[in-house]
Amino acid sequence: MPGACIGGMIGTSCSGTNAARYGTMRENVLGLTVVLADGTIVKTKQRPRKSAAGYNLTGLFIGSEGTLGIVTEATLRLNVKPKFENVAVVSFNTLGDAASTVAEIVQQGIAANALELLDDNMMKYVNESGEVTTKYEETPTLMLKLGGNSKEAAKLTTNTVKEICKRHKSNSFRFAETEEQKFELWNARKSALWSTIAHGKRTVDPDVQVWTTDVAVPMSQLAKSIEQTKAEIQAAGFEHSFVGHVGDGNYHALILFKNVPEQYNAAKKLVQSMVDRAIADEGTVTGEHGVGYGKRDYLVEESGEDAISLMRKLKLALDPNRILNPDKVFRIDPNEPEQEGH
Amino acid sequence: MPGACIGGMIGTSCSGTNAARYGTMRENVLGLTVVLADGTIVKTKQRPRKSAAGYNLTGLFIGSEGTLGIVTEATLRLNVKPKFENVAVVSFNTLGDAASTVAEIVQQGIAANALELLDDNMMKYVNESGEVTTKYEETPTLMLKLGGNSKEAAKLTTNTVKEICKRHKSNSFRFAETEEQKFELWNARKSALWSTIAHGKRTVDPDVQVWTTDVAVPMSQLAKSIEQTKAEIQAAGFEHSFVGHVGDGNYHALILFKNVPEQYNAAKKLVQSMVDRAIADEGTVTGEHGVGYGKRDYLVEESGEDAISLMRKLKLALDPNRILNPDKVFRIDPNEPEQEGH
Repeated sequence: MPGACIGGMIGTSCSGTNAARYGTMRENVLGLTVVLADGTIVKTKQRPRKSAAGYNLTGLFIGSEGTLGIVTEATLRLNVKPKFENVAVVSFNTLGDAASTVAEIVQQGIAANALELLDDNMMKYVNESGEVTTKYEETPTLMLKLGGNSKEAAKLTTNTVKEICKRHKSNSFRFAETEEQKFELWNARKSALWSTIAHGKRTVDPDVQVWTTDVAVPMSQLAKSIEQTKAEIQAAGFEHSFVGHVGDGNYHALILFKNVPEQYNAAKKLVQSMVDRAIADEGTVTGEHGVGYGKRDYLVEESGEDAISLMRKLKLALDPNRILNPDKVFRIDPNEPEQEGH
Repeated sequence: MPGACIGGMIGTSCSGTNAARYGTMRENVLGLTVVLADGTIVKTKQRPRKSAAGYNLTGLFIGSEGTLGIVTEATLRLNVKPKFENVAVVSFNTLGDAASTVAEIVQQGIAANALELLDDNMMKYVNESGEVTTKYEETPTLMLKLGGNSKEAAKLTTNTVKEICKRHKSNSFRFAETEEQKFELWNARKSALWSTIAHGKRTVDPDVQVWTTDVAVPMSQLAKSIEQTKAEIQAAGFEHSFVGHVGDGNYHALILFKNVPEQYNAAKKLVQSMVDRAIADEGTVTGEHGVGYGKRDYLVEESGEDAISLMRKLKLALDPNRILNPDKVFRIDPNEPEQEGH
């Protein structure tokens, strides 16, 4: 994620386009130094690559959104970049075809370094953005990073993936030819949010708002989940785009709306529906954005009151005076009424 | 690990020969159903492949050795086995050469499916065991699983690894030719403990005891750590063997001793020294065996009193009556004197 800092990434258990291969922050932090609410300084772990010694304190602080302690140091795992990497752009007629392609790539155990899905609108906004020198087809598209330790290995993987794409009715399979094109292309993917806002400013309202939210579902539910969510947003008449880290079953909806209460409330309802669907599909209310204030009620829906009350016990054991980011993730007092805003 | 059950593996955050590629239980459990000390039943997560929703309860219970709740259900991640896999046996003159080979394989980002180190004694006990039809060289040895999605891909990886081994002065590089040989070979690795005990019964005492223990250290410290530990055990005159999941910097020492207090105490001192060395090398007192009663004091040494007191707070928040595996991992009362036994 452009602009993300390590501390914030630890706070939300962040991930992004490379998580399909390298994991999220949970898999990439070896140890933390944390200042607790009472001022105690704890080092959760030295730097072995694995450990079965004691409670997994590192894992408890990652994703706790600053509610359990303040992280002052982190030891990160280093991953090795593959020596050779191709970036491919594959266009499809339907989101379903693109999603089933990803499912087969994952099921075959092919270690793609990134598997990104962009919907028709997102491709349009990328074309409009001026960030790319080529025009791309404005249909559901996969952007793939396929690598290996030798040119031959990278080629082998690429050919296998190409065959899978064809079997799932891909329209075209194009490579970024040069290092510049690779950079340009991945950069276009990274600026999805800004391209979508730019489009909204031109076509919706100069003061356009964007509701950006994410869920993650089991791979088998992915195509259906995205298609139904997109159909609902479309039917409600909102401009929107979708991007997904689909190798992890994780996708984002970006809903553009005017800065008026009716539109805000309508957008909120669409998000609620997307989250309800993810929960019904045995997924999660957020794959990487975190809960904050905005998804506290959804978290209760996903995890149940008993799990939240367990989280509350942990919070109060570590921070009895509620001084660390109080009421983020869950309400400390379960009877507090819902607040406005997200 | 032969004989391991899923519940126990969750309890200790277990791993084994395949963890270098597929991770430990921490990376392979998606969600748990847990009965808490007060009878509440909590489901930590549905089954998305990733989630940033709420505290990482799944990760808290994994490796907590039954002290925080009783796991009654687990949802596991499924990994895809590579379609083609070679098993190779590579012998070296020194442990240092074998360990530096592993470091280079890991640094080059080669995804070996398993990287196992066996010392000269372990190879001898394997030969003696009657489990293998071929005799292996009785020198430090790597057993490797190298795979790929096509024959070509597996061959490419294998050739690269072969070159690395040669550069680090390997004496021989042999493949298991048939499926039977692969099975036999990996089976020999798996029965390391039984082969060592069998050797001890013949040569040390019919009532021989084995102290089996593990540590994990950063890769850069691995060769030195194993060599120094082995030298100490040898100097103390104990029969022993070493096996290591060296792709993770994790190794096991198996010390054979007679069932008399003097030998028990001497073995204990050697383990203490191995653990002290791991801590000094920024490692951990156990990579996969867990703490139990035996390594409670070592855990204090590794993590410090403040980290233990944080674990104690978590324990007492969830189990105020101390009914779940009390005093495992750490003493609930820090002033309780040390007990006998391990």
